[in-house]
Amino acid sequence: MTKSMVGLLLAAALLAGCGGGAATSESAATTVAPEQRYQWKLVTSWPKNFPGLGTAPENFAKLVERLSNGRMTIKVFGAGQLVPALEGFDAVSQGVAEMGHDGAYYWKGKNPAAPFFTTLPFGLNAQEMNGWLHYGGGMALWRELYAPYNLVPFAGGNTGVQMAGWFNREINSIDDLKGLKMRIPGLGGEVFSRAGGTAVSLAGGDIYTSMQTGVIDATEWVGPYNDLAFGLHQVAKYYYYPGWHEPGPTLEFIVNKQAFDALPADLQAIIEVAARAVNQDMLDEYTARNNSALTELVEKHGVELRPLPDDVLRELSRLSAEVVEELAAQDPFVRRVADSINAFKQQSMQYHQISEEAYYRARKLQ
Amino acid sequence: MTKSMVGLLLAAALLAGCGGGAATSESAATTVAPEQRYQWKLVTSWPKNFPGLGTAPENFAKLVERLSNGRMTIKVFGAGQLVPALEGFDAVSQGVAEMGHDGAYYWKGKNPAAPFFTTLPFGLNAQEMNGWLHYGGGMALWRELYAPYNLVPFAGGNTGVQMAGWFNREINSIDDLKGLKMRIPGLGGEVFSRAGGTAVSLAGGDIYTSMQTGVIDATEWVGPYNDLAFGLHQVAKYYYYPGWHEPGPTLEFIVNKQAFDALPADLQAIIEVAARAVNQDMLDEYTARNNSALTELVEKHGVELRPLPDDVLRELSRLSAEVVEELAAQDPFVRRVADSINAFKQQSMQYHQISEEAYYRARKLQ
Repeated sequence: MTKSMVGLLLAAALLAGCGGGAATSESAATTVAPEQRYQWKLVTSWPKNFPGLGTAPENFAKLVERLSNGRMTIKVFGAGQLVPALEGFDAVSQGVAEMGHDGAYYWKGKNPAAPFFTTLPFGLNAQEMNGWLHYGGGMALWRELYAPYNLVPFAGGNTGVQMAGWFNREINSIDDLKGLKMRIPGLGGEVFSRAGGTAVSLAGGDIYTSMQTGVIDATEWVGPYNDLAFGLHQVAKYYYYPGWHEPGPTLEFIVNKQAFDALPADLQAIIEVAARAVNQDMLDEYTARNNSALTELVEKHGVELRPLPDDVLRELSRLSAEVVEELAAQDPFVRRVADSINAFKQQSMQYHQISEEAYYRARKLQ
Repeated sequence: MTKSMVGLLLAAALLAGCGGGAATSESAATTVAPEQRYQWKLVTSWPKNFPGLGTAPENFAKLVERLSNGRMTIKVFGAGQLVPALEGFDAVSQGVAEMGHDGAYYWKGKNPAAPFFTTLPFGLNAQEMNGWLHYGGGMALWRELYAPYNLVPFAGGNTGVQMAGWFNREINSIDDLKGLKMRIPGLGGEVFSRAGGTAVSLAGGDIYTSMQTGVIDATEWVGPYNDLAFGLHQVAKYYYYPGWHEPGPTLEFIVNKQAFDALPADLQAIIEVAARAVNQDMLDEYTARNNSALTELVEKHGVELRPLPDDVLRELSRLSAEVVEELAAQDPFVRRVADSINAFKQQSMQYHQISEEAYYRARKLQ
């Protein structure tokens, strides 16, 4: 073959549109477009593979690998494996890991608006949070909040309405909260402190020992499925509902912005859509598994299931509104977020009264 | 250019992978792996781009194109554009289109178990349906049901609790349903007929005219967001709640089995995960948009919003259990599906009483 014929062949191949890959230099020697592969690290505050919370990022990693035909792999690190629990925000912001899976309310020390993107005491439930985030302006606010920290957020799962928590004394009035040291993060913790308790933020893996050694007197974690896995019934007697402080907590995937921007468009879409799928999948799992775990807690382990009295809920609700209002008064961005959530909440309360609530009621009629 | 040079150019272009086709042998001459492209058709029973229901398959098609980097494109056909409304099951089964987006309860004439995968009167709400399908055994049963029809099903959206429907007479007792001709599909229709009415199945696009011309006396469709779009307030006065007959209707994506099996694994994953994302996205949209539509219906159009009386709901509930039991007695597969749903429902009712319901109640305390 003459040199000019080789040239013609190469030209034909290029013209035929098979150059592929953005980063490939199209020299004569490059016969196959190299496929850029991405190997990312994802850090979490959960014990590795902890039911629900910890399996969500594992499921996400599996989806990304399948969707990308192996072009992208994500290694999940449990709490303490790469960075300590509750340090994912800094780690991903600085690029120590490309991604994290946590709850935004762990970052209230970074920005007072962060907890609003997990849950608000007496705020939105799971269905409503998803509506607000994806069709009510919530996601745009979240992206705006995280941009200065070099982070891109995605909703990353929801536990549904949580339980109010584990106590070793009965809660008959708001005074029974006074003096209690309780593990309760986010704005719920602020409210609890205002009710006379002391709120402590602890990673999940530290709760059991802290209860056992008396470092804390009470704790909330998630709900029956997760609380049973931690054995919290061994360190507390009373299990209270409903989770006024976390009615529809949204977990988060966070992505380092440079890492995200460096991905081709299809891998960006894969991150986004895999997160969306996992966001629903977690709620599906909790919905299917909480009740049998609760039955086991009550029937096998003798846990005493109790509703918080209305008077206690009323006072916590009053204090919650007070906490949110004070935070909003101090920070214009918190004001925007709080106004957006509260407007969505009013709409949701109105509509769910004749839909979800009316249906729950109708289904029980005998 | 000599004839042999032209031949070489053509050969180079073909070898360079621009001819499509999966069957390229990887000889030394093959320099770039050819990328097979897929162009699929998707049929629906919805008017093209109808809010929520009709935008879901469009959103799905966009996601698939983004996730596959354009390797797969899906063209969406509205009702009547390729096949008539309510004929998607046969069309996809026979390969006229590779995919469909509909509700399984439109296929009760094909198999008595089909409607159970959309919704059951007094059955599961949206959150519970998703839990049952993805973590309660529902999806495995659905796949088993559709396999003989050459179809692979995926959950494809949920409207949340629907409205009970539009009437031109007040419903004060079960007797007020007698003699009414109502558009109400699926098992809800069976129950309505048993209550003394006549159930009619009509595609969405035919409802308005049928009401206007008196072909039917009453109708249900979806909820405020969709019902406002059809202008149903112009043909009926009373708008009743809650949607006892469709508490959490799941739409479906169906895929022709041969077409699905012929896809590479990553495109199969893309179909599956895009469907999962759309399944959540639809509920998010309805959750965000129903209330303002309802406000417009009531305040601007003078619609009279009414709850169904408890006695009516009780009787409909009794008849619903009767209908399900009779269907189950006649068909072993229906029995399996009904037992699975009913077991999940008992668990959900128990747990949601102390979680979702208790929270809705707590949030309203003043």
